Amino acid sequence: MYVRSTPTLLDLLIAWRGSILPYIAGRAMVVAAVSVLAVLVAHRLPGDIGGGAVPFTLIGLSLSIFMSFRNSACYDRWWEARKLWGQLLIETRSFARQTAHLPPAPREAMLTALCGFVNGLKARLRGDDEQATVAAWLPAPAALNPTDAALREVGRHLSALAADGAISEVRHSLLEGRLTAMSGVQAGCERIKSTPLPFAYSLLLHRTAWLFCLLLPFGLAGSIGWWTPALSLIVCYTFFGLDALGDQLEDPFGREVNDLPLDAMTRLLERELLAAAGRTDLPPAIEARDHLLM
Amino acid sequence: MYVRSTPTLLDLLIAWRGSILPYIAGRAMVVAAVSVLAVLVAHRLPGDIGGGAVPFTLIGLSLSIFMSFRNSACYDRWWEARKLWGQLLIETRSFARQTAHLPPAPREAMLTALCGFVNGLKARLRGDDEQATVAAWLPAPAALNPTDAALREVGRHLSALAADGAISEVRHSLLEGRLTAMSGVQAGCERIKSTPLPFAYSLLLHRTAWLFCLLLPFGLAGSIGWWTPALSLIVCYTFFGLDALGDQLEDPFGREVNDLPLDAMTRLLERELLAAAGRTDLPPAIEARDHLLM
Amino acid sequence: MYVRSTPTLLDLLIAWRGSILPYIAGRAMVVAAVSVLAVLVAHRLPGDIGGGAVPFTLIGLSLSIFMSFRNSACYDRWWEARKLWGQLLIETRSFARQTAHLPPAPREAMLTALCGFVNGLKARLRGDDEQATVAAWLPAPAALNPTDAALREVGRHLSALAADGAISEVRHSLLEGRLTAMSGVQAGCERIKSTPLPFAYSLLLHRTAWLFCLLLPFGLAGSIGWWTPALSLIVCYTFFGLDALGDQLEDPFGREVNDLPLDAMTRLLERELLAAAGRTDLPPAIEARDHLLM
Amino acid sequence: MYVRSTPTLLDLLIAWRGSILPYIAGRAMVVAAVSVLAVLVAHRLPGDIGGGAVPFTLIGLSLSIFMSFRNSACYDRWWEARKLWGQLLIETRSFARQTAHLPPAPREAMLTALCGFVNGLKARLRGDDEQATVAAWLPAPAALNPTDAALREVGRHLSALAADGAISEVRHSLLEGRLTAMSGVQAGCERIKSTPLPFAYSLLLHRTAWLFCLLLPFGLAGSIGWWTPALSLIVCYTFFGLDALGDQLEDPFGREVNDLPLDAMTRLLERELLAAAGRTDLPPAIEARDHLLM
Amino acid sequence: MYVRSTPTLLDLLIAWRGSILPYIAGRAMVVAAVSVLAVLVAHRLPGDIGGGAVPFTLIGLSLSIFMSFRNSACYDRWWEARKLWGQLLIETRSFARQTAHLPPAPREAMLTALCGFVNGLKARLRGDDEQATVAAWLPAPAALNPTDAALREVGRHLSALAADGAISEVRHSLLEGRLTAMSGVQAGCERIKSTPLPFAYSLLLHRTAWLFCLLLPFGLAGSIGWWTPALSLIVCYTFFGLDALGDQLEDPFGREVNDLPLDAMTRLLERELLAAAGRTDLPPAIEARDHLLM
Repeated sequence: MYVRSTPTLLDLLIAWRGSILPYIAGRAMVVAAVSVLAVLVAHRLPGDIGGGAVPFTLIGLSLSIFMSFRNSACYDRWWEARKLWGQLLIETRSFARQTAHLPPAPREAMLTALCGFVNGLKARLRGDDEQATVAAWLPAPAALNPTDAALREVGRHLSALAADGAISEVRHSLLEGRLTAMSGVQAGCERIKSTPLPFAYSLLLHRTAWLFCLLLPFGLAGSIGWWTPALSLIVCYTFFGLDALGDQLEDPFGREVNDLPLDAMTRLLERELLAAAGRTDLPPAIEARDHLLM
Repeated sequence: MYVRSTPTLLDLLIAWRGSILPYIAGRAMVVAAVSVLAVLVAHRLPGDIGGGAVPFTLIGLSLSIFMSFRNSACYDRWWEARKLWGQLLIETRSFARQTAHLPPAPREAMLTALCGFVNGLKARLRGDDEQATVAAWLPAPAALNPTDAALREVGRHLSALAADGAISEVRHSLLEGRLTAMSGVQAGCERIKSTPLPFAYSLLLHRTAWLFCLLLPFGLAGSIGWWTPALSLIVCYTFFGLDALGDQLEDPFGREVNDLPLDAMTRLLERELLAAAGRTDLPPAIEARDHLLM
Repeated sequence: MYVRSTPTLLDLLIAWRGSILPYIAGRAMVVAAVSVLAVLVAHRLPGDIGGGAVPFTLIGLSLSIFMSFRNSACYDRWWEARKLWGQLLIETRSFARQTAHLPPAPREAMLTALCGFVNGLKARLRGDDEQATVAAWLPAPAALNPTDAALREVGRHLSALAADGAISEVRHSLLEGRLTAMSGVQAGCERIKSTPLPFAYSLLLHRTAWLFCLLLPFGLAGSIGWWTPALSLIVCYTFFGLDALGDQLEDPFGREVNDLPLDAMTRLLERELLAAAGRTDLPPAIEARDHLLM
Repeated sequence: MYVRSTPTLLDLLIAWRGSILPYIAGRAMVVAAVSVLAVLVAHRLPGDIGGGAVPFTLIGLSLSIFMSFRNSACYDRWWEARKLWGQLLIETRSFARQTAHLPPAPREAMLTALCGFVNGLKARLRGDDEQATVAAWLPAPAALNPTDAALREVGRHLSALAADGAISEVRHSLLEGRLTAMSGVQAGCERIKSTPLPFAYSLLLHRTAWLFCLLLPFGLAGSIGWWTPALSLIVCYTFFGLDALGDQLEDPFGREVNDLPLDAMTRLLERELLAAAGRTDLPPAIEARDHLLM
Repeated sequence: MYVRSTPTLLDLLIAWRGSILPYIAGRAMVVAAVSVLAVLVAHRLPGDIGGGAVPFTLIGLSLSIFMSFRNSACYDRWWEARKLWGQLLIETRSFARQTAHLPPAPREAMLTALCGFVNGLKARLRGDDEQATVAAWLPAPAALNPTDAALREVGRHLSALAADGAISEVRHSLLEGRLTAMSGVQAGCERIKSTPLPFAYSLLLHRTAWLFCLLLPFGLAGSIGWWTPALSLIVCYTFFGLDALGDQLEDPFGREVNDLPLDAMTRLLERELLAAAGRTDLPPAIEARDHLLM
């Protein structure tokens, strides 16, 4: 995630990193070339392509309306993913607090297993080696869904504590509620990861955007001449820019510049869990480098 | 579900499967024919149909605004359906974890019954033989709502375990909470299945879209001549495409290309439940074939 | 509710029932007459009313934006009402499952009282005789809010069972949770029923729609001549159609063609409750007649 | 609240009460005067202010989009406020049901205190004398937040009952859940009351609406002449009307024509609580007068 | 927060404080200068830049649609932040009520620690010295996340009370539910604070808005002459105004004029908690100064 909020005046002029420009530079160049071509054609064949601005208004605005919907859906996915990780923070903190009175040994085992859960979830979402990641925190997690196995390990400890009478049934139920919520976070993230927007929808909008941006210069060139490239580029910048941004936000767990900083969030959770377990040799918090937080 | 996210440049040019084109090809051809006709008429009777572009802008944009609403409502249904199946994942995983300490026999019976519930729900939503599907996992489910009967079977086991003192009242309440949530998933899916968008709404938008796309060429032909077919086709592609996509997303449980992969999700749940029950002869996970996951 | 989802080509051409046309035919005829008048006036006084299309675009699009908001709000009410009845299904099914282990006599009494609740709620929402409806299932319900009295009757049974020790306090709390949720369904439905959209809002949009549709022909007639009636009718069809549909969806509990099928849903709940009570003489499920489900 | 739903044809023609017209009549007259002036100027200086319709389309539509957002936010506040009062209905009914088995004396004390809570909340939201209102139902409520003091009084009774063993810990927890939810209703209403939309937002939109409506006639007069006043008035009616309606819905607890009928809702809750407490001398329900329900 | 709701007529004319004008005055002046330049150029080179209004309509409306989305997302963040603080009010009030029967000493310790939590949360969100703030209420909070340490301190008291038998397990679970909800408020606020809208999105819209406002005068000057500066300024006022307002609402915890009044809300919570603890020397409530509440 690029850690900046309000762009400054200088950003407006020159910001390249953190902006969507690197992703659409190629497309912008194609549109620029087509615009120049359109103006040349219009000078050669005046009158033949004039009057076209009104239908382009119609197509362009319809496209804006539908792209706005797609953008909003992609943003909602990104924000929901962020909420799920915030939920994980709530649940791990509360789990740590609600087990504070337990004997240190099983408690540390449970908090360590939760570190395994958190790291495993990150590996799962980023396509890393989930099995190996969880195994670093947990003895021999199951091969099928090792991340969930970490939760089951915590659940096993809780059951044993309840069976020993170390925690009452009500306390057990309270703590199991935390685990169910964490399981909800995992399933929510898996849902976002495995179910992109319907492919046909993205394809339809990409195609319409391309068609529109390639034809627009011909619609404008007859009436506004050499203003065509500038205006076409602005339109192309906005449409392709939002499109590319939507593509990034759609899968918020990747490593692109607008994706969620899973590394930093995982480390934060890990540090809080280890500190709760009484450990003092905490790994360092992950900071942004050049405003980029992974 | 077509398992692709961002379309590539090649997709933009040639993708046919996974796109909405196969569903609207017929309509597009009608519009193309009408466009050609309109241009011919306009050449014959110049001036008679000119100046019409502005009212078409008005109608077209109003239609975009209302179609955007319908599309958004259909997408919300599709996404809610996906959330409900994600919820099912949370609840079955948590049920498995929260029963891990129970004696194997009743536990396996319950987890098997849950397999029946999951498969029965899929059959119910896809119009397959629900009774037979559930009966494969459960002895003699009731004829009225066999899927719910599977949940009742699990509930019966829980009650017996509670009566025997094998689980405390609090633990029973915790596990019943899982069943209530699963019942919520079933009722939610039934709601989406049985209650489409108001028919009058879909009909109104379909009709307006048709009227608009058939009249638009006559509005444009007078001023832009042979550009008419191209621009009309783009408009028709966008409007009919979104319309057809909305139709598909509206009932997310079918077997069309943009519907949810219920087969794969059911199998995933089944595998996790059976593995939790200690079974090792798991049925294989269902993979996408040619990017198509059922 | 009209039970159809995707309109067919034939529907597009001739569907009358299930469509919004019967509700707006009168208004459409007024607009048609005004359109013809406008064209005649325009032929008599050419130039005097030309050039007006642009302000009409402005008004028409603003109106579309605001009508889209109203439509979306009305649809949300309709869908929320449907969700509440789905919630009722969850809660009654779960109540039946969670009481399966109880002695038959009080259980049947409670399930019968729930039938009274469900039927009473329907009567309350549709303006039927609530007191008589509930009295068919329940001995002498209170005059003030008989539907809630049915829930109180179930609560009385639960308290008695808890006092006798037949159910534990935890089980009682679990079952009371179901009743609280059912009470929530009732209050939610009452809210939708008793609180329409602000009257001033509906009035404002109706008035603007009328003014717009009556003036539009005069704005168009100067430039597009005899195309005016056709285009005005399409605009009028879309605007008045959405308006009339919004009116229907705003109160989803009525008996109009797009309202919720409360009769069928009530019967479904009744059948499931009676079957759970061990009854075999179930009343028949209500089917759609001519695609119309009440 | 003006208790009408669908406006009739007669309403469309003459409804004044319940409409937004009384609130914007002054502004409409200003716009009418400016319109006439613009036409006179345009006749004097033809050509000087022509061609301006297109930029006004741009400004007008942008304004519509942003006003639609504000309207939607204001409506959400109004509807959320209504939902909170519906929640209060759920919680008081459930509290009454869940305490039905208690001894009459403490139960009546608790239900009476809840009447104090409900009336106090209304007084707090409408700026009446909260302290005196609560004191009518409760001995000596605290000066700091008397409405919450009523809830604390109920909580005190519950604690005493639990300490005496009259209710179990689980039952106490169940009933406390009701109080927590009521506390949530109070805090939600206070939030809506104390936090209007950002002032800068309302100010920005009001100013733009004024500027737009005052300049629009000059943009139109050159091309459409004496149609200017009519069309300007329609635009002004829609924009100022929605603006004024937004102002009313923004604070839904006032006494304006579109505000929530807190008097009637409070009385309804009071009647149900008193009837549950066994009282038969209920105060009369509040009916609408001339369609106006306070 | 600027504590005003409906602007008066006078506000419309002269309000400067509380409005967004101070933030965009510089940009408005740039646009005014460019507008004048454009008119001068247009007089020199008539015809060369005419006809450009239509593409600007397209760009301007697309921009409006996308800015509306950003504005809506920023407003949602602001309103969610307000809801979270309202939630804190619910939870602290309920905690105070649910501990009313406890012995005064531990209760006062817990309520004081909650004061530390509330103040620490404010310090954390506003970038003040969190450690020192919490330490004023709590002996030696942990260095890593002192605000959460305050909750852990309360949890420690609760565990001790449960271990002593002073509160039952069920009561402990009820109170722990309050703490979990408060932890949720903290994590929610941290989420809003640490995750702004994607930087690329804000940058894209800022850039498009600038490009649009700088080019618009050239598009208009040819046809509307000296009306250009006025209309360009209105557009610029609306677009830059909404943009600047979005920037403010995006981070609702700051000290700008439209941010949430965290000082006042913290003090309110503190006063209610101290009063519940039996203290009478309450710090004074914070009032608005010149309509400005911090």
